[in-house]
Amino acid sequence: MSKKVAVIMGSDSDFPVVKSALTELKKYDIPFECHVMSAHRTPAEAAKFAVSAKDSGFGVIICAAGMAAHLAGVIAGNTTLPVIGIPMKSSVLDGMDALLATVMMPPGVPVATVAINGAKNAAVLAAQILALSDDSIAEKLVSEKSAMADGVIAKDEKLQQEIDAL
Amino acid sequence: MSKKVAVIMGSDSDFPVVKSALTELKKYDIPFECHVMSAHRTPAEAAKFAVSAKDSGFGVIICAAGMAAHLAGVIAGNTTLPVIGIPMKSSVLDGMDALLATVMMPPGVPVATVAINGAKNAAVLAAQILALSDDSIAEKLVSEKSAMADGVIAKDEKLQQEIDAL
Amino acid sequence: MSKKVAVIMGSDSDFPVVKSALTELKKYDIPFECHVMSAHRTPAEAAKFAVSAKDSGFGVIICAAGMAAHLAGVIAGNTTLPVIGIPMKSSVLDGMDALLATVMMPPGVPVATVAINGAKNAAVLAAQILALSDDSIAEKLVSEKSAMADGVIAKDEKLQQEIDAL
Amino acid sequence: MSKKVAVIMGSDSDFPVVKSALTELKKYDIPFECHVMSAHRTPAEAAKFAVSAKDSGFGVIICAAGMAAHLAGVIAGNTTLPVIGIPMKSSVLDGMDALLATVMMPPGVPVATVAINGAKNAAVLAAQILALSDDSIAEKLVSEKSAMADGVIAKDEKLQQEIDAL
Amino acid sequence: MSKKVAVIMGSDSDFPVVKSALTELKKYDIPFECHVMSAHRTPAEAAKFAVSAKDSGFGVIICAAGMAAHLAGVIAGNTTLPVIGIPMKSSVLDGMDALLATVMMPPGVPVATVAINGAKNAAVLAAQILALSDDSIAEKLVSEKSAMADGVIAKDEKLQQEIDAL
Amino acid sequence: MSKKVAVIMGSDSDFPVVKSALTELKKYDIPFECHVMSAHRTPAEAAKFAVSAKDSGFGVIICAAGMAAHLAGVIAGNTTLPVIGIPMKSSVLDGMDALLATVMMPPGVPVATVAINGAKNAAVLAAQILALSDDSIAEKLVSEKSAMADGVIAKDEKLQQEIDAL
Amino acid sequence: MSKKVAVIMGSDSDFPVVKSALTELKKYDIPFECHVMSAHRTPAEAAKFAVSAKDSGFGVIICAAGMAAHLAGVIAGNTTLPVIGIPMKSSVLDGMDALLATVMMPPGVPVATVAINGAKNAAVLAAQILALSDDSIAEKLVSEKSAMADGVIAKDEKLQQEIDAL
Amino acid sequence: MSKKVAVIMGSDSDFPVVKSALTELKKYDIPFECHVMSAHRTPAEAAKFAVSAKDSGFGVIICAAGMAAHLAGVIAGNTTLPVIGIPMKSSVLDGMDALLATVMMPPGVPVATVAINGAKNAAVLAAQILALSDDSIAEKLVSEKSAMADGVIAKDEKLQQEIDAL
Repeated sequence: MSKKVAVIMGSDSDFPVVKSALTELKKYDIPFECHVMSAHRTPAEAAKFAVSAKDSGFGVIICAAGMAAHLAGVIAGNTTLPVIGIPMKSSVLDGMDALLATVMMPPGVPVATVAINGAKNAAVLAAQILALSDDSIAEKLVSEKSAMADGVIAKDEKLQQEIDAL
Repeated sequence: MSKKVAVIMGSDSDFPVVKSALTELKKYDIPFECHVMSAHRTPAEAAKFAVSAKDSGFGVIICAAGMAAHLAGVIAGNTTLPVIGIPMKSSVLDGMDALLATVMMPPGVPVATVAINGAKNAAVLAAQILALSDDSIAEKLVSEKSAMADGVIAKDEKLQQEIDAL
Repeated sequence: MSKKVAVIMGSDSDFPVVKSALTELKKYDIPFECHVMSAHRTPAEAAKFAVSAKDSGFGVIICAAGMAAHLAGVIAGNTTLPVIGIPMKSSVLDGMDALLATVMMPPGVPVATVAINGAKNAAVLAAQILALSDDSIAEKLVSEKSAMADGVIAKDEKLQQEIDAL
Repeated sequence: MSKKVAVIMGSDSDFPVVKSALTELKKYDIPFECHVMSAHRTPAEAAKFAVSAKDSGFGVIICAAGMAAHLAGVIAGNTTLPVIGIPMKSSVLDGMDALLATVMMPPGVPVATVAINGAKNAAVLAAQILALSDDSIAEKLVSEKSAMADGVIAKDEKLQQEIDAL
Repeated sequence: MSKKVAVIMGSDSDFPVVKSALTELKKYDIPFECHVMSAHRTPAEAAKFAVSAKDSGFGVIICAAGMAAHLAGVIAGNTTLPVIGIPMKSSVLDGMDALLATVMMPPGVPVATVAINGAKNAAVLAAQILALSDDSIAEKLVSEKSAMADGVIAKDEKLQQEIDAL
Repeated sequence: MSKKVAVIMGSDSDFPVVKSALTELKKYDIPFECHVMSAHRTPAEAAKFAVSAKDSGFGVIICAAGMAAHLAGVIAGNTTLPVIGIPMKSSVLDGMDALLATVMMPPGVPVATVAINGAKNAAVLAAQILALSDDSIAEKLVSEKSAMADGVIAKDEKLQQEIDAL
Repeated sequence: MSKKVAVIMGSDSDFPVVKSALTELKKYDIPFECHVMSAHRTPAEAAKFAVSAKDSGFGVIICAAGMAAHLAGVIAGNTTLPVIGIPMKSSVLDGMDALLATVMMPPGVPVATVAINGAKNAAVLAAQILALSDDSIAEKLVSEKSAMADGVIAKDEKLQQEIDAL
Repeated sequence: MSKKVAVIMGSDSDFPVVKSALTELKKYDIPFECHVMSAHRTPAEAAKFAVSAKDSGFGVIICAAGMAAHLAGVIAGNTTLPVIGIPMKSSVLDGMDALLATVMMPPGVPVATVAINGAKNAAVLAAQILALSDDSIAEKLVSEKSAMADGVIAKDEKLQQEIDAL
């Protein structure tokens, strides 16, 4: 079995969006843990988690946070594991604040940032990373990609009927 | 003598701007320490500093950082002292990234944010805070404010000559 | 008892958001006054209030305003007390106009700006400032911070059940 | 002679741009005064000036300010004369902060905003306003408009030579 | 009676917002005409209207338009009357497109821009302009300003009861 | 020979950028005229040009303008020919104002907008449009596309030497 | 009959907006095909479609996509036909991401970009392009433009009644 | 030896920035290839490269592109390897266009985006990914992180001398 993925969110209010990362990881049979942890409210816990993440069997850490989204950066400062950041849309600014606070990391401490609210893609990216040393995930990624293409083609066929009916 | 002010910057490249905070603090005879410390590169040191800052005799912590500016937020997560954030302009986006990453803090963990590159104002704000329990600083603030007004009036007088010469 | 906090808003339509600042101040037993006052509609009253705020027993002034949010700046121009600005979201631009109009103050006249609609944080910041000379507030800040961390941990535990049920 | 135009700037560093407003007013023989006056550093002087501007013979007030540009709004709050705002570009954000802080005025207190650094247009707008009751200015506006069109046509002719030489 | 104000909008869908300009003009007994006219769909009509507006007895032209809001600019290109632009919020971008397309006019052709959707302020500005040669409007502006201040003070009093009930 | 392309710019200061559109048109042997013409300063001339453009033998009109860039929209309002807009970068806002003022056209009056300062692409697009009924241009487009790919491949080969030298 | 127009969208969720492009094309009796095709999910199909589009009888390709909208650019990279891009608004950022990802194409590969969600205008632009070699479309464009102007005039008349009733 | 990293850039003008990714990869003894390849100018080559990248021994693909930066997305559409995107600053908009065009990928096709011009971090992220199955890289990452922290501490010490000299 592959290394575990940690999925951390800054607030439990992020869970409705973050949940789709978990669903996606399950699709690839990737083991995961999911936690609420805050760079600002539980900084010691967050740092401790990151420092020991590698030894705890994690291979990738996904962090979801909104506003002045520091969670991914703080985790990345405390580990050499790849850290994936999901900027969350909150009540103002449409997630632009979280995007900039997640992606604009200084040299030496990268955060692999996905789209605003891009929880599914964070999981796919984690799967792509783990697939480098796990052929079973690699195969599933290929078949998922193929299924995704088939889905587009099926939608195109269905669309033709709607167009005929215009 | 008043409590000390800590002036922390994420990178020594911020010093040319941050220096004016130090000059301003000197104007008010406020004791200070100034350090390079990074939320991402020396997270343990930064957290440790913040946790012990109150006991070390600090009253206010000023944090200057650019890009995904997490320094002020990380410090604020580890202390109950007032934390002032200076968003630094860096090579792209004119400091808008640092502004949002500094000011958009979640409920419970404020950062008192000043203008992009607003190092002088960070020091003035620190002085205003410390002046609440230090009459000597309070008096200097009043005379500085008065001098500032006189400066504008003097500039207005000088301007009249330029206008006459148009 | 500590110095009073003034909470001023540019329009009574801001009250639903600003109210949470008052609730928070009560948590710390900080005395306060709350007023509607406008930089543009009642400029003389606003200036007069600011000029006499220190002598009236205020220690911190919180100003909430939207759009071309001048209230905090105008108050700050008329006092040497620390002024905290809350940029309010209004019907367009998601509060970005108010954020820039509040935070980008010129040298010499700082406004300690919190997040857009960040009324609770304005109160916490005021408490942190007053706590420098009031041990009772300082102790409450520490226990609030601790309770906040416990809250995150409790949410994390509750989350585990949701995840098991996925 | 028409009413006077007041041209106020928040800082004497704005003068190189603001100067072109004065040059333009001279073109229309409109009498003016020009002052450095600050909403934040000399608020009492600014308010006093605005309150008495009408009685002092002014018809229009032009205000140039950068960053959290409150000058035009503060003047407009203290007079019923038309106030024209010039948002000034400063060292960051390209004047977007000043634009929003100038134009997004609340209902009841308008500021007639021109382009960022648009000093010449502020003067032309003042001339258009005063021309409503001053035929001499009105005539000059018509001939200036005509000259401006001729200038474009002349430039088009000159361009043809450059194109032939391509 | 004062000169007329023309209120032009690019689309009849703007009327619910623009209507408040008309209500405001009525408050000052300012005669007006209101039209749908488009810089892009009826360019000849718009140009013709602008060219003859002065001779038709208009003193000020208010233009409301959204998206690539060219209406005010096009009108301003065809008249020397003061033109006031209202940038309208439309279905995307919150009116930022219309704001920039209205306010960033090139030298020589100003548009007096008010806030996004700021229809009431467009009318107040028109009244301030016309008041320069009409004492009756001038007096009404003073009493409106006074009433506006009284309104804020009344709201402040009412707020005290809500606060007592907290 | 194909229909002519009109290349219009709002100001002769745009010529250094616009020139590359002319160079590109020459590459395709497309006849063109180039003019300075302003939506705001010579509105009648601009409208007249657009109204008669089709009868004058033009097939496509390219319009370059900065700031509140109305030129393309105004031309498009007066013709049914395809109009291509080049938003020009000016001294502030990096051309974002011109981009929005050019591209956000209302239903019924499109402007085919290219990148900020994208003069070359405006010409290529014109060529692509004219190529639909002109095989000679169509063939040149194919060979230009092929040459462009060869250029990238050549640059890749040259890069390998720089990398070996690292 | 004219060449066909291809209308491609990145996701079938774009169809409610894109549909108005089809309705508009029907108005001009322009034959079209409409497909779901993705630059990221079916890249081979998209490239193949573009490479053969000219030989398949297409004259113009309209591409609608949201977020990191690559569809139009990818199609344009594989054909010398004119490509029209419709940036689609999605759940965050109001389509600004799609606008920049569509319009900011590098030299040599233009995308004729219309407004965010501007499906109708994409079709009108396609009609304008095809009209250069199809007089029947050209005539319809003229009568549509005329009808559009009549529509505005009719709305203006209707508005007069609403104003009388104010 | 670990899998290879591909470093692709859309234009050779990106090389001065991208070079630091190569320097960084060398630090970790990670084998790499570096190519100029364009989503728009050499789409077939780019697609072909991506499709065969896994079989060619690549583990990670780094893509640098500016403006409507489609390169990373197009590569990601054609492989299941992790793709890292570097948004490049170009002559306008400070790289915001490239950032949005790189990071806002639709569900199923992630691009791991780093900061604007963040070439070094792209390489560090690649190293972190490859380190999951390569202990030698993992150890180097730990010692680099440690050296980075030491560097900050050294800079702090050096700063103390500058401060003493103030």
